[in-house]
Amino acid sequence: MTDPAPAVEAANAGFYRAFEALDLAAMDRVWAHGAYVKCVHPGWPLLVGWDAVRASWEQIFASTAEMRFTVADVRVASVGNLAWVTCTENILSEVRGRVGVTTVLATNVFERVDGRWRLVHHHASHVLAASP
Amino acid sequence: MTDPAPAVEAANAGFYRAFEALDLAAMDRVWAHGAYVKCVHPGWPLLVGWDAVRASWEQIFASTAEMRFTVADVRVASVGNLAWVTCTENILSEVRGRVGVTTVLATNVFERVDGRWRLVHHHASHVLAASP
Repeated sequence: MTDPAPAVEAANAGFYRAFEALDLAAMDRVWAHGAYVKCVHPGWPLLVGWDAVRASWEQIFASTAEMRFTVADVRVASVGNLAWVTCTENILSEVRGRVGVTTVLATNVFERVDGRWRLVHHHASHVLAASP
Repeated sequence: MTDPAPAVEAANAGFYRAFEALDLAAMDRVWAHGAYVKCVHPGWPLLVGWDAVRASWEQIFASTAEMRFTVADVRVASVGNLAWVTCTENILSEVRGRVGVTTVLATNVFERVDGRWRLVHHHASHVLAASP
């Protein structure tokens, strides 16, 4: 069987491209659509279902002037048609006129449906310290 | 095929029981052991590999006098031998003499090997606000 890692990595890169482009139509293509889709933005409560997740992207894109990602330390693991990715998002952003640099750790879960890897779960959180 | 959700929920509950008991031997049984095992404690950087993950539990257990979980909003989804769970951890803890109450959102990924669901990824982060 073909190693799924390159295709999963490509899907993961597509997610950050859509985020950077603030492109809701691209996000529509990156994500699976359904009630079991979930998303945790840094510090936010859990969003459940594609409608809620999509609305959050709409809200984030509306309030963001610019967003640049340097995604590092991408690690892919997969079992059958499910893959989970961890990566570090180094983010330069301008939100409501404020420029900020931040580091976020993300877990992204992708499901392969009809040969295409789609995002079903995104959990992002701030890295605060080396350890408590 | 049997719905895997009850077995995954039981495995998830076992993780929090081991955490609450500050029981490293129980953690050994909850987790898969291997280089692809990963863990994000709230605010910590990514830990990669069972050795690093196990050492973090050892460190947390050593500095924690008491830990009580009320785990809520447990949601299970699975595709084949991989399942991902989201839940809210309401935590009452005493760490280095300080009692604290906190709410943490967790993504737990379990892999079924030889009929047993084992934790392969834990990502926990603080809930800060309803939305930015």
